[in-house]
Amino acid sequence: MSKEVSLEKIVSLAKRRGFIFPGSEVYGGLSGTWDYGPLGVLLKQKLIDLWKDYFVYQRSDMLMVDSAILMNSKVWQASGHTETFTDPLVECQNCHNRFRADKIDLSTCPHCSKKNTFGVAKNFNLMFQTLIGPNSNEDQVLEIDKKALLNLINQQSGKVLKFKLNNFTVQANSNLVYLRPETAQGIFTNFKNIIDSIYPDLPFGLAQHGKAFRNEISPRDFVFRSREFEQLEIEYFIQANDWQKYFDQWINLIQDWYQLIGLKKESIHLLEVSGDDLAHYSKRTIDFEYDFPIGRQELSGLAYRTNFDLTNIANFSNKNVDYRDKKTNEVFIPHVIEPSFGIERMIMAVITEAYTEEIMEDQSTRVVLKLSKQLAPIKVVVSPLLKNNQLLVDKALDLFNSLKKALKFVLYDDNGNIGKRYRRADEIGTPYCVTVDFQSLEDQTVTVRDRDTTNQERVDINNLIAYLN
Amino acid sequence: MSKEVSLEKIVSLAKRRGFIFPGSEVYGGLSGTWDYGPLGVLLKQKLIDLWKDYFVYQRSDMLMVDSAILMNSKVWQASGHTETFTDPLVECQNCHNRFRADKIDLSTCPHCSKKNTFGVAKNFNLMFQTLIGPNSNEDQVLEIDKKALLNLINQQSGKVLKFKLNNFTVQANSNLVYLRPETAQGIFTNFKNIIDSIYPDLPFGLAQHGKAFRNEISPRDFVFRSREFEQLEIEYFIQANDWQKYFDQWINLIQDWYQLIGLKKESIHLLEVSGDDLAHYSKRTIDFEYDFPIGRQELSGLAYRTNFDLTNIANFSNKNVDYRDKKTNEVFIPHVIEPSFGIERMIMAVITEAYTEEIMEDQSTRVVLKLSKQLAPIKVVVSPLLKNNQLLVDKALDLFNSLKKALKFVLYDDNGNIGKRYRRADEIGTPYCVTVDFQSLEDQTVTVRDRDTTNQERVDINNLIAYLN
Repeated sequence: MSKEVSLEKIVSLAKRRGFIFPGSEVYGGLSGTWDYGPLGVLLKQKLIDLWKDYFVYQRSDMLMVDSAILMNSKVWQASGHTETFTDPLVECQNCHNRFRADKIDLSTCPHCSKKNTFGVAKNFNLMFQTLIGPNSNEDQVLEIDKKALLNLINQQSGKVLKFKLNNFTVQANSNLVYLRPETAQGIFTNFKNIIDSIYPDLPFGLAQHGKAFRNEISPRDFVFRSREFEQLEIEYFIQANDWQKYFDQWINLIQDWYQLIGLKKESIHLLEVSGDDLAHYSKRTIDFEYDFPIGRQELSGLAYRTNFDLTNIANFSNKNVDYRDKKTNEVFIPHVIEPSFGIERMIMAVITEAYTEEIMEDQSTRVVLKLSKQLAPIKVVVSPLLKNNQLLVDKALDLFNSLKKALKFVLYDDNGNIGKRYRRADEIGTPYCVTVDFQSLEDQTVTVRDRDTTNQERVDINNLIAYLN
Repeated sequence: MSKEVSLEKIVSLAKRRGFIFPGSEVYGGLSGTWDYGPLGVLLKQKLIDLWKDYFVYQRSDMLMVDSAILMNSKVWQASGHTETFTDPLVECQNCHNRFRADKIDLSTCPHCSKKNTFGVAKNFNLMFQTLIGPNSNEDQVLEIDKKALLNLINQQSGKVLKFKLNNFTVQANSNLVYLRPETAQGIFTNFKNIIDSIYPDLPFGLAQHGKAFRNEISPRDFVFRSREFEQLEIEYFIQANDWQKYFDQWINLIQDWYQLIGLKKESIHLLEVSGDDLAHYSKRTIDFEYDFPIGRQELSGLAYRTNFDLTNIANFSNKNVDYRDKKTNEVFIPHVIEPSFGIERMIMAVITEAYTEEIMEDQSTRVVLKLSKQLAPIKVVVSPLLKNNQLLVDKALDLFNSLKKALKFVLYDDNGNIGKRYRRADEIGTPYCVTVDFQSLEDQTVTVRDRDTTNQERVDINNLIAYLN
């Protein structure tokens, strides 16, 4: 079952309250890119910090790496990406719009509605290309059959001739590089350096957080499928024989993780990827799916990749990537379990799960993000009951400054009336609103309003930090 | 004065101990890219966290944004980068190697040593290009003069002809985008969204952390000048009249920041960029220079950029980016002060400052990174005195687990003898080594060895966490 909240409501809230904006919006945008506003940066940061804490820093068998986005092209030859990281692309011969062949009904063009205008699908590689070094496009060499070229020339009149670049063969330029389409390969390429410098005991995991880029044919559904995104990936290196044991451990770890960030157990569905859909090197893959507003879709993956990647690196690089067991002196190429997370999808799931609309007594609708307290971008909003009473304002500012020092993620808000401030705080998921009122001036207590229950309690200022924690 | 430590020693330590590796090293590398190993990730993370804390979270006038790396090309037209973000490039007519004209002696080629082989320098744009969307290179249109093309054909025999792409004019493809060469523009492009969603009171700052890319002609000097790097940038929005006051405030803030991360005051030099070198939009710029092993070089910058960028955005986008003062209702385009930091240069400075060699009593050399405790990747190393005594090992592991829970960045090390463990801990800048010995089994005390003094103290296990903090 999909959550009842619509994608539109989430997109609208995200923009209105400074979580996520369309990329380059002031210039009309750039399809498939998104920018994080102040609230979104905090939510994302807290999610990443929590992830690192849970999967890396609380454990003794995990290390982090952080590889460059631009890598030697051999990385993607060895991994198979230059050959097979493609989507099927079709072009309408009428309107010349292009689509993913596996995502549309091919009998009618979804843009111009003309029937039967699609030819055979071709493979479109999703990796962004760029040239590196003090060469530029000019150094690419074009090759063409002499006869074909003369034909092309004869087809055109005029002094200036125009050719499409696909009439030519462009000689592979040695300086061609790709924007990485995944962070995982940056872990494998560093395996040897990690072994040489640190030599962790097996099993151990290497985790990486960073950007990846895919030139999606049709980016869509908010941040669900974008062209630039962030991943959190782990390669967990093991002995081949142990794979089932560790695979099961990781299933449990990942399920617990999703509960930790506030996703209900019944919203997460494990999809066992069946034999036909499995990559040839994977012996088992599970997709963790979530009930997004756009339907049940992949949230993250867990794959047993055997020793496919390290073996390819050994073959393509002619380097030794063997691991020698310290106790047994056995030498082998480790196998890996790969848990792989997309940050945008986790954020989308967390917001979906937290988004709540409640009808209030006055029949107005309260929109509230019931985020877990660990993820809420702002912990506390501090307000004076009235902004034109200097005594209230001074006391509220004093309190704000001390709370800010102690809790960091604290806002001061004196705009509009107290009801409006509560609603704003609700929309960004702030667990507590603290109000300084006239009684505060007398007895050093403040009201603390709870986001989820909307109940208010009077709390002594001296106990406030302990109460909020 | 340059520090006496050589760049080679720093590069070697960084690789040997898992801080920083050459990018794509297993495939022979990719010039100008670097990967962070487990220790480097931690050092970088702590530096960034500290920076955010100091410049953003401890303040009430700062917010963060996080914009995409791929932006609409108009961003770079408006900012002037497509036109002027260039370095002068010369090519040796003998060996065809290319160099930055302003960095070499032009009378002799530094590669083949031939004299007077350089022609006129041309402007080489440092922005990486890529194509976005379901079009690819094939959709670029080549234009060429008919006569010129026929000449080219006649010059070649054979069935397959080869042309350099610079014989052709490539029609600008509307899907051409750049990898951002700085994070700053991603702040300016979000100014309007921030105003519309959050409307902070002036003065306020927007900070951004993220990657940037420059296709340097000759990347060099370790991470000092690389093609992929990370920035921490702030745009601090102010009233035009206030610029001198805030510029001075930022000078002080930045000086304090460098002391906070352990750079000595006398290692930081303020260079007032003089009128001739100032960008035309900047009324004042200060470079903060540091005494790197490669000499005194720019560490970070501080510029008063007037309202140049926001005005350009208003002009190029036809959008209103005015700010309305809530109290006075005055409407204007704010001016900005821009503090701009490069993370790699800060890391290089921090390691340079911390790198110390000491001659020990036995005439051996102790290499120690005297990092500030806030930046040290690992806080504590825990060891049993002997690894083959189960009582010592069990107690050490117990202690390790409880310290890890409390302090997170804790290592267990039982390799080699205790002296070697201390040296390893020194090289990665670990402030404390805790050793469980036979006395520990009797009186619940351990030895705590201090990195900088090498002094050892016995500390009761129950007081250990407090002691280490």
